[in-house]
Amino acid sequence: MNDHPMRQRLLHLLTHHRWAALATADASATPMVSMVGYVMGQNASVIYLHLSRLAAHTGNLLADGKAALVVSESDIDAAADPQELTRVSLQGRCVVVTRDNGEYSTAKAHYLQRLPASERLFDFPDFVMFRLEVESARFVGGFAQARSFSREELGTLS
Amino acid sequence: MNDHPMRQRLLHLLTHHRWAALATADASATPMVSMVGYVMGQNASVIYLHLSRLAAHTGNLLADGKAALVVSESDIDAAADPQELTRVSLQGRCVVVTRDNGEYSTAKAHYLQRLPASERLFDFPDFVMFRLEVESARFVGGFAQARSFSREELGTLS
Repeated sequence: MNDHPMRQRLLHLLTHHRWAALATADASATPMVSMVGYVMGQNASVIYLHLSRLAAHTGNLLADGKAALVVSESDIDAAADPQELTRVSLQGRCVVVTRDNGEYSTAKAHYLQRLPASERLFDFPDFVMFRLEVESARFVGGFAQARSFSREELGTLS
Repeated sequence: MNDHPMRQRLLHLLTHHRWAALATADASATPMVSMVGYVMGQNASVIYLHLSRLAAHTGNLLADGKAALVVSESDIDAAADPQELTRVSLQGRCVVVTRDNGEYSTAKAHYLQRLPASERLFDFPDFVMFRLEVESARFVGGFAQARSFSREELGTLS
C-alpha cells in the first residue's frame, strides 16, 4: 500500500496548526485536558510546548512526563461531518528543556515564528519549555481512514 | 463582580460547538486524547458522547469513567493570538446510557440534530452512549481571563 499521502497529510497537519489539546493525568489516574500552543521540532517525533508552572497540567508533567496531544482540523462547516476532519493523537513523554542551551533557543525561535504573541511569556519566570518526545501517533484522515505511526517513522517526517 | 457574560459565553461555547478533545487515562495513569463529537444535555453539567467500543478511550471509560473534555473556538486567524480564544476544560465521570430508556432517545435526538451524519453509527452494535457528568469546569475567555464553575453552577446553565 502506498501511504505516502497519509505521511504528507500528517506532516501538513502538524506544521500548519499551532493549537492543540494537551492531556495529562495525576497520580490517581485522573485525566485533565487543556488547550496549548505547540510547534513541531526538527521532525514529527518532537513537539515543543511552553507552559506556565501555575497550570495544573504542568504540575502533572513535572511529576510524571507522560502526555498526549491531539491536533485537529477545525470544525467550521456546519453542513459537513466532523468525523471527516483530519486529526492526529500523539502519545509520549515531556522533558524540560533548560534555558541554557541551543535546543532552547532554536525551539523558542520556531515557537515565536508560529506564535509571535507569546513573546512576552518568555520573560515570565514561571514558564517552562517542554520537549514532547512522541512515542506513537494515531492519524485519522477521515471516517474509517486511520494509520498508526511509530516513533521511528515520525522521525523521518520533516 | 458581575460575571454574567462569562456564564453566557460558556453556554454559547458548549452549545455552538460539537467537536471536542476527550482525555482518558488507563490504570497506569497514561493519558490519551482524541477528538469526539458531543452534544450538551439539559444543562452544562451534562454532556453526551457516542463512542465505539473499538476505540481505546472507550476501553478506558468502561474500566474507570473518569474523563476530561476540552472545547475551544477554532484557531483560524493566523494573525491572531490563539491564547485569546475562548475554551473550556471539563472534568467529570462517564456513565453508560442504556438503549432502553427515554434518556437515550432524547440524547440521540439532540446528538443527531448537531451531528446528523452520525446517524449510521447508531445502527452499529459496538457504539455506546455515555453521559459525562461534569464535576467542574475551567472556562478561559481569553488571555488571563479565567473562571471556574462548580457542578451546581453548571446545572443552572441551560
